[in-house]
Amino acid sequence: MTSGKSGPRRLSIFGSTGSIGQNTLDVVKHLGGRENFEISVLTGNENVDLLAQQARAAGARLAVTASESHYEALKGALSGSGIAVAAGQSGLMEAADLDADWVMAAIVGTAGLAPTLAAARKGADIALANKECLVSAGDLFVESVRRCGGKLLPVDSEHNAIFQVLEENQRHAVERIILTASGGPFRNASLEEMAGVNVETARAHPNWSMGLKISIDSASMFNKALEMIEAKHLFGLAPDQIEVIVHPQSVIHSMVGYTDGSVLAQLGAPDMRTAIGYALAHPRRPNLPIERLDFAKLARLDFEAPDEARFPALRLARLAMTRGGVQGAVLNAAKEVALEAFIAGRLSFLAMADVTETVMDQLVDVPDAATMDDVFAVDQEARQRAAALVAIREKAA
Amino acid sequence: MTSGKSGPRRLSIFGSTGSIGQNTLDVVKHLGGRENFEISVLTGNENVDLLAQQARAAGARLAVTASESHYEALKGALSGSGIAVAAGQSGLMEAADLDADWVMAAIVGTAGLAPTLAAARKGADIALANKECLVSAGDLFVESVRRCGGKLLPVDSEHNAIFQVLEENQRHAVERIILTASGGPFRNASLEEMAGVNVETARAHPNWSMGLKISIDSASMFNKALEMIEAKHLFGLAPDQIEVIVHPQSVIHSMVGYTDGSVLAQLGAPDMRTAIGYALAHPRRPNLPIERLDFAKLARLDFEAPDEARFPALRLARLAMTRGGVQGAVLNAAKEVALEAFIAGRLSFLAMADVTETVMDQLVDVPDAATMDDVFAVDQEARQRAAALVAIREKAA
Repeated sequence: MTSGKSGPRRLSIFGSTGSIGQNTLDVVKHLGGRENFEISVLTGNENVDLLAQQARAAGARLAVTASESHYEALKGALSGSGIAVAAGQSGLMEAADLDADWVMAAIVGTAGLAPTLAAARKGADIALANKECLVSAGDLFVESVRRCGGKLLPVDSEHNAIFQVLEENQRHAVERIILTASGGPFRNASLEEMAGVNVETARAHPNWSMGLKISIDSASMFNKALEMIEAKHLFGLAPDQIEVIVHPQSVIHSMVGYTDGSVLAQLGAPDMRTAIGYALAHPRRPNLPIERLDFAKLARLDFEAPDEARFPALRLARLAMTRGGVQGAVLNAAKEVALEAFIAGRLSFLAMADVTETVMDQLVDVPDAATMDDVFAVDQEARQRAAALVAIREKAA
Repeated sequence: MTSGKSGPRRLSIFGSTGSIGQNTLDVVKHLGGRENFEISVLTGNENVDLLAQQARAAGARLAVTASESHYEALKGALSGSGIAVAAGQSGLMEAADLDADWVMAAIVGTAGLAPTLAAARKGADIALANKECLVSAGDLFVESVRRCGGKLLPVDSEHNAIFQVLEENQRHAVERIILTASGGPFRNASLEEMAGVNVETARAHPNWSMGLKISIDSASMFNKALEMIEAKHLFGLAPDQIEVIVHPQSVIHSMVGYTDGSVLAQLGAPDMRTAIGYALAHPRRPNLPIERLDFAKLARLDFEAPDEARFPALRLARLAMTRGGVQGAVLNAAKEVALEAFIAGRLSFLAMADVTETVMDQLVDVPDAATMDDVFAVDQEARQRAAALVAIREKAA
């Protein structure tokens, strides 16, 4: 990272056209916009109209579409703007190479791994919204950030909550973290009911409006499983220090328990701008036009233990954390394939965990990943094995 | 304060035979006892047997009974121990004069004012459990602590909770504090029912076992009124930044709301050793054998707006905070007399607030207290006026 201390902070937003990216641009505006920040790069995928519009409004230096085939469209939309244009994986790596003080890493999936790691290796502070960096490549990624001097700022509401109440100078006294989970649409469903659910019933999330895959991961609690693994890497915890509690109102975003019996919690409205703003303004809390909590109106907050029989994903997360190595990458890759098979109507809801666990068991002896290529290799291997299992099950059904 | 840095920390416990004092000695034991701490002074009141026993066990240098008439009994109980003995107000001032690095200020009532202020002026860190120091003499007391270099460490569970989650370097971003209140035994009572309650129904506190006066202050929410005024002085807030929410489970001990929409909360079991330990070990969190929260077992937390028609004490606290000056001292003194009259069956439950408000109005033009003597004078004046009002009402009844 070359120093940007004398001028405005240079920001890059990887995944600017998605929900987190759009909210990040909104937060940037509220925190002073172009008076305080300079946008280095915006990257998006196929929505090049929005990407071009964002890039012009922000005065970005470079706009990148991850989709090679949208290069010309983006170039056309930005003609005359003076904004450089790039595309594809090489475009994303070009984006990561441009100097930035702070990078919002919000590219979804394994596609986000390489550019985020590259940005971290340049020493930028990383506001992390991509799950794979920690789930699939946690050891590598955390080590790179640490070595290169950037800060790792979690943007997921749960991890951001923990980040807010995990006192840096009291690490000796951290006993446990308690991730809250909404419980999703099947919180009160029976195992029998869950065996028969389809995509439409699974996608209805009670508190946050989200994309299809994330909604289903929330219904199966695979999202919480990924968050558990992320938390392990983010906060350097042992698997048995990571608890999950079902809290349907999602008002408490997560908690930290200390050795003096205190539990500290961060609460808020379901608005991701709080976490984004915290990451952007860190270490100074910003002022944001976010709905304030009214406890009399909330009236009650509920809690219940998660049922690992109905939500086996949580058990698989513990397994992955305890086994360590590449098991997180395997869990994530196998789950992705199973999830796509469920969406395509080729696999039942509960079988997603079965497929994932079988692949994890098959790949239990794969050695630790020393490089990002090792991570990609195991990711591919797990996907192929999961696909094979899905095909066998489909044939048997 | 002379330096105790080279040896063990020197502690004084004002009010060691009460509940807070006993818990403080228990925490001292858990944090290493005589290996880490040296007890300078223990003070108590009439329970000289316990005081003598504590003083011998702790190896105190001085034991003080606040009761002159118990001097000989304490002297007898400590004969041959080598522990010095003193009594009465002069004994308490002697206690405050003995060097200490940390003082637990747990003497109840206005009796605690002078020795606590004297200890603060010697530069000791003050773990504050006495309410009057802030309610009656807030400006004077806070200024003395600040000027003399000691830390002010709140021990009340609500203020301690706020102290835990009020980020020192984020004071610009503190929007409000939210004091939680159990609501006491009359949370769901009608105004008519409350008009007719007696001491026995008023003393039953749902979550904490407490003394009679404190229980009744909890039932009338005068305890919360005092805490609001204390919070104003402790945290330097404006009256409209101090909210109260009824939370019958008392699991959330209090909260702080920030300008980014985040609310930070401290939660815990109803065990005052967490707050005492936090104050004693500050800034390092200790390890204490306190029951850990089990959220699945808690199952739910409720919240409701306090009803200021049934709990006028809260309105009076706002009045006292807005008026400032000696109105806190007036509120506290008048309330004490009204409380004693209620306990004696001479005043109805709801009339406690009427008497208090009338005295506050009568003394609205009294100038600010410049000295502790001014505070005592206004305290006496308010008590006399409250007593007169009680007598008039009794005559009229």
